[in-house]
Amino acid sequence: MNEILKQIKDRKSMRVFENKPIAAELKKEILNAAFEAPTGGAMMLYSILDITDEKLKKELSVECDNQPFIAKATLVLIFLADYQRWYDAFDSQNCNPRTPGEGDILLACADAIIAAQNTVVAAESLGIGSCYIGDIIEHCETIRELLDLPDYVLPAAMVVYGYPVEAQKNRKKPVRFEEQYIVYENKYRRLTKEEHIEMQSTRNEKAGFPNKNISEDTKALCNRKYMSDFSLEMNRSASEYLKKFRAE
Amino acid sequence: MNEILKQIKDRKSMRVFENKPIAAELKKEILNAAFEAPTGGAMMLYSILDITDEKLKKELSVECDNQPFIAKATLVLIFLADYQRWYDAFDSQNCNPRTPGEGDILLACADAIIAAQNTVVAAESLGIGSCYIGDIIEHCETIRELLDLPDYVLPAAMVVYGYPVEAQKNRKKPVRFEEQYIVYENKYRRLTKEEHIEMQSTRNEKAGFPNKNISEDTKALCNRKYMSDFSLEMNRSASEYLKKFRAE
Repeated sequence: MNEILKQIKDRKSMRVFENKPIAAELKKEILNAAFEAPTGGAMMLYSILDITDEKLKKELSVECDNQPFIAKATLVLIFLADYQRWYDAFDSQNCNPRTPGEGDILLACADAIIAAQNTVVAAESLGIGSCYIGDIIEHCETIRELLDLPDYVLPAAMVVYGYPVEAQKNRKKPVRFEEQYIVYENKYRRLTKEEHIEMQSTRNEKAGFPNKNISEDTKALCNRKYMSDFSLEMNRSASEYLKKFRAE
Repeated sequence: MNEILKQIKDRKSMRVFENKPIAAELKKEILNAAFEAPTGGAMMLYSILDITDEKLKKELSVECDNQPFIAKATLVLIFLADYQRWYDAFDSQNCNPRTPGEGDILLACADAIIAAQNTVVAAESLGIGSCYIGDIIEHCETIRELLDLPDYVLPAAMVVYGYPVEAQKNRKKPVRFEEQYIVYENKYRRLTKEEHIEMQSTRNEKAGFPNKNISEDTKALCNRKYMSDFSLEMNRSASEYLKKFRAE
């Protein structure tokens, strides 16, 4: 296994950081990794907000499901799926562009996330930990106001970076589900109830918890991640963002 | 610059491949890189379709804006944003789940693309080229039928992989726009007409084409990438996928 595969395998999310700044030249390398990422038609359908204002970081940490560690990260980047830039460029050259649609913004989301993941890999290679904050999709109205977002922009992900404290480095990476439940040949296949149970029980065994109650676990996960307030808010907010891209 | 940063910098899309299979153990490494990627709540909100059927590859190459090179790739993976799996798991355990919403599928798209980009980085480290095919978002109805996609699944990206031919390796990587047009501090900023022109002219200079006509170029790009049939189809199709996630 080469060094890159090894780092990909070992990389896990880090949420507690040392109070140690990331040097300017390393930040530059992290951003460069975004720019060098694959991008549809070489258009770079994303923008990156570099959150340096400590007050703004705090506000974001509250809006993103109250996670104070966000405010303590030394580097906070928001990856925006951005069709505003090209819409404006087309408009300024009298191309008479249509308004951006749902396909355009999905493509821009892909561009933004591809760029984000390259920064995560680059940071890891520099000993800098990172964590995705999906909650940036919540609270559309407040986030738009805080970040001056125009209509044809959508926050695809926030990523926080920093030097992880020792306890974080020693944390066990969550075990993944087995390949057979994730990869299908040629066609999608819905899993049976038994396979859903197997998927979780084989993971629990690998993680060292063979006796967990799958039914209780699934209900708890559903309540915590899917029926919870933050999840309902994320769906409401995402819908507000996507409305701007809907053809009526 | 370490080896990982260097590979990220040098990596460019490859579209013509040698007729040389990817060994099973290398394919396994590429898939592992997906599994090891960050994933929201460790839920792996994606599925990967491994397209091994040559007839299906050909059909996909037609549906994806008629790009025959797709059918010649030795490895073709489709990264599906997938909330069907967890919806079914919750349902099978009588959690009485709501139907997945637009926030859920955006989060799943992020998961799918993060996993995809890890495979691209991993492949590069093994000397295997790759190319994203955004066109997989088009022709919803046909793609759903070809791949047996249920309602709560959306193809976030297709990636093709293979050993690039020499001419592809020697191709120049498209020059990126300068940082100042992509990264903003704290707040989004819409560019002026002058800045849009500068953004393109500075790139053209770096690429060795200082005398290109920005106005003509922008119009040509708009026609080719934004007002074209494939782009209109992508928006129509994306809307069909997203409809399933809309609360009414």
